[in-house]
Parts: sequence; structure tokens; C-alpha cells
Amino acid sequence: MANSVTQLFKIKYPIIQAGMIWCSGWRLASAVSNAGGLGIIGAGSMYPAVLRDHIRKCKQATSLPFAVNVPLLYPNIQEIMHILVEEAVEIVFTSAGNPATWTAFLKEKGIIVVHVIANTKFALKAEACGVDAIVAEGFEAGGHNGREETTTLCLIPMIKKAVKIPVIAAGGIGSGKSMLAAFALGADGVQIGSAFAVAEESSAHVNFKERILSSAEGDTKLRMKKLVPVRLLKNEFADEVALAEAQGATAETLVQLLGRARAKLGMFEGDMAQGELEIGQVSAMLNEIKPAAKILQDILNEFLQEKSNLEKLSF
Amino acid sequence: MANSVTQLFKIKYPIIQAGMIWCSGWRLASAVSNAGGLGIIGAGSMYPAVLRDHIRKCKQATSLPFAVNVPLLYPNIQEIMHILVEEAVEIVFTSAGNPATWTAFLKEKGIIVVHVIANTKFALKAEACGVDAIVAEGFEAGGHNGREETTTLCLIPMIKKAVKIPVIAAGGIGSGKSMLAAFALGADGVQIGSAFAVAEESSAHVNFKERILSSAEGDTKLRMKKLVPVRLLKNEFADEVALAEAQGATAETLVQLLGRARAKLGMFEGDMAQGELEIGQVSAMLNEIKPAAKILQDILNEFLQEKSNLEKLSF
Repeated sequence: MANSVTQLFKIKYPIIQAGMIWCSGWRLASAVSNAGGLGIIGAGSMYPAVLRDHIRKCKQATSLPFAVNVPLLYPNIQEIMHILVEEAVEIVFTSAGNPATWTAFLKEKGIIVVHVIANTKFALKAEACGVDAIVAEGFEAGGHNGREETTTLCLIPMIKKAVKIPVIAAGGIGSGKSMLAAFALGADGVQIGSAFAVAEESSAHVNFKERILSSAEGDTKLRMKKLVPVRLLKNEFADEVALAEAQGATAETLVQLLGRARAKLGMFEGDMAQGELEIGQVSAMLNEIKPAAKILQDILNEFLQEKSNLEKLSF
Repeated sequence: MANSVTQLFKIKYPIIQAGMIWCSGWRLASAVSNAGGLGIIGAGSMYPAVLRDHIRKCKQATSLPFAVNVPLLYPNIQEIMHILVEEAVEIVFTSAGNPATWTAFLKEKGIIVVHVIANTKFALKAEACGVDAIVAEGFEAGGHNGREETTTLCLIPMIKKAVKIPVIAAGGIGSGKSMLAAFALGADGVQIGSAFAVAEESSAHVNFKERILSSAEGDTKLRMKKLVPVRLLKNEFADEVALAEAQGATAETLVQLLGRARAKLGMFEGDMAQGELEIGQVSAMLNEIKPAAKILQDILNEFLQEKSNLEKLSF
């Protein structure tokens, strides 16, 4: 099962678990890596000391490669970067910021660097900065999202055409069918978020997991477009945001409405009314809490089955 | 190349050209049908007498099956329906309205009926009304669009799981790669709009075609969400709408801003500043005006090539 992504990360399957705030600590990351994918610790919701602890625990829980995702706009970014080096993290996914700032620093230390983008312009920029691969994330993805609103179906072929480095498709992928579609579009790997957010090993609050499982089509919407667009699951807070936006709320009003620590309140502490619930459109198709290894294996089995079905098409 | 869609329509390839206002008259529809796909006359921008004329000319231009797309909210809907019967149209695609109203009438006359939907609820309703197939259209599609904003990648597997009748994927499909992705998701056929809007035989104004070819990522956005969501290409008018919406414009204000005949002004008469320009996200990938037969053949060739590449993947 060797391709450019499995070879780059030295993993068995080209399936990457997205770094997700309040969901992907060492338990989820190590479970995915032990199952043959690439697990990612999401540093975005961790204080530096907490991140260090998760990296150490992840190394105890798996001998296989794993990564850390770092939003580059993180306030403690310098401290975080030095922790990654001190703890000998081998793969870093960077997002939400300029890849020019830290890529050379990480590469000099021998670290594999992957950058998350949502348009061709930043894909080219990341490639020029020397990253080893790109995650191209479409409109249907959960959490923060691109301003172009380009869907995964439209984004992947454009990015593949623009860059030479491996392209990992993200957004809307949570099944073997959608993984196969991503490969049909030219992707070299897939990054899966929502489907792993409801894994047994995800640190998301059980209320959040159950809300995801009960969600339906149209329950997530891209909001906060005057700040940074973010895909939110419908609840009292998201309804307040929607109403404010329909009435022309300014960026300042949205900042006030958002307040502080709402993502933690919802996703980690389980307040389903007032918390900020970040999840992708895939949530409408999820209906079970399973171990991460089972999630990965089910996706892989469906991928192989559908690939075989597609080959049988007589045209 | 037989599957449920080619058998239903008695066509060679499961490629359907979308019925598009101001683009798809008899010239485009007959060219696509003659090339082995299913051409569709878009009745949405035609007075009843004009539609009758297009149907007759289409029959002269091709002996192969073609269809007519009818938005069910059309003001002259009764007259249109009787014209379809009088002119012995064999396949009708209905959209933008309730499939309960006209499906039985058309089916009694022996007409094949396909209904366009954007969510599972209406897919099930259309199936219950007796339609022969469904077009499931994702967020990335041009023109009018669903309120759920579900992308094609997320929509198709959900619709396939819900209904037993053939599912035709639409939205974001304008290449062999995206056609292959649609089949990977379980689609039985594809409906392609934007790529055929720039065909030589499309009746769109050349200014509109050239604007589509020069468009970039993020140049189309879903607007008018307080009325009926519609994907528009960026221009002075779309910018005015965007500004009004950002300031909280009411549905009434949007109706006034839209005024009358703006789609004709832009797409048919070539006013690139003040016209309403309906096109899908695929527009960013189009770069040439070609005959419809060449468009279809290029898509088909890429589909076959990519299908062969996908089969070679060692996992």
C-alpha cells in the first residue's frame, strides 16, 4: 500500500486523522497511529506544558509515527516550536498562518512539515516555502475554513494541477466512498476529522459526540465570515450568531458574541446550548461511537469494496 | 456502457447536460445528444411559444433522446406542461417546486420524469411521487441551490443510501476526474452545467463565456440566501448584493436590488457589470470554448484514463 503519502510519513495507510482542538490528544493520535494511519495531536487547544505532556504520552502509547498540528497564529508559538524540537516530534502539520515563518526552522531540524491550505495561491506559497506535503481542505470541513468556499470536489483537482508535492484531501471525507472519490480527484492521501471526533479515544465531551451523532443534513453552517470563517453545528449559540449575521453584525459584534473559551465550553465541557461546536458536514452521516481503529478499518474496507465495484463498471 | 441511467434514457454515456437558463436551447441540447449524452433544453428562460420552437428544432437536429428542464415555479406552468405533451417530449426534468403537482400527469402520458433535489427529504418525496430518477445537486453548483449547503461529496452518498431509483450527481462536475469521483460516491450518472455553458453551441453571450473562462477560485459565491440561494459570479451587481447582505439587507431589499430580467441582461445580452451571472465553482477550471461534442469526449477520455489510474493503485 505504498504511495507518496505512506512513504513520506512511513505509515501503512494514507489516512491521516486531523488535528482537532479538544478532540485529538495523545489517546486519539496514538490509537490512529497504532491502527496504521497517522495520528495527530492538536496543539491548538493546549497550553505548552500540556502539549509536552501529550507528546510524551503519545510516544509511550505508540512506537509508530505521529504528528502535531500547530495553528501558526497560536500566541505561544515560539515556545510551542521549541517544545516540538526538544521532544523530537518528527512530523508537524501547520495551519492558520504564514508557512514562511516556521517551515525553514522545522526543516533544518529534520522535521517533516505539512501545511494546510484552502486555495491554489497558498498551496503554491507553501510549496515554495519548502513544505513536504499539503493538506487541501474544502468548504465542507469542520472548524476554520477558507474564504473562497471552494468544495473538496472542486479544490483537489486544482491543487493537484498546481503543485508537485503530495496533496492530502480534507473536508467531507468520513467514509470509504468519499476516500475513493478523493483519490479519483488525484489526492495522495486523506485527512479525516469529524469521523474521528466521535471516536472512543477522542477527548470531546460525550454530549458533543452524541450531538454529532444526532445531527442532520444542513445542521452545520459556515459562520463568522467577517472574522475567520468557521463551520459550526447548530445550537443556541450558532443560532444567535446566524441571527446577528442576518442583521448585518460587524466583526466587532461577532468578537463580543464569541467571547472567550466557547469551543472549550462546548466541545470539552459539554455545554450543548452555549458552546461553540466545530464539526464538518460529514457529521450528518455519523451514527456510532467506535474505537479509532475500527473507524479506520471500516473506512478502509469500504474504500476497497467500492474500488472493486468501480472497476466493474463497464465503461 | 450500460447502466441504470443510460438504460433509462436510451443514451450511450451517463452524461447529462444541465438545463440552464439563457444557455441551453436546441443547439446545445441537440449537440450533446448527438455526441451520446443527454441534452436538455432549459425552459426556465423561454416563453411557451419559444419553448415549442426549440423542441421542434431540437427534433430536427437530432434523432436521439433529449429532455426539457422545467422549473415548477414557472408562471406559465400549465401551458408549458401541455406543450411538452403536444410536442411528444419523452423526458422531462423538473426542478424548483413540488414534484407532487405534475409527476403523475407526465407519467400518465408515458413521459420519463426526473426531479432535481438538494437534500434527502425531497429525494424521498420525489421518489414517493413516482419520478424515474433524481438529480442530486451540491452546494458548488451554479444557479439556484439548496438551503442546507451540502456539497456534492457529502450529498451523493446520503441520497444513494436513501432512495432506490437512479441518482444523477450534479454540482462541481466538469471533468473526467470529478465524474469518476461522482461514480466513486455511488452516482449512476452526472449532470454537467458550467462546462457546457461555455460550449460553442451554448446560447450564452460571448462576453459571459469569456468572463467564465477568466474567472478564478472564489469568484462565485452563494448569494440571496434570504430569497432563494443562488450561486453568482463576481461582478458589480454581485458585489452590490454582497455589500447589502453584509449590512443585513432584508428579503424585500434583495428583491428590489435584483429587479427584473437581470439574468437575461448578463447571460444573454452580455452586460458583465449589471447582469446576474449564474455559474458553478467549476468555472475556475474552464479555459476554452469548445464544441459540446469535444467537451463531452474530453470528459469521457479523462474519466477512462483516471479510472485506469485508480485501478493501478496498489491498495
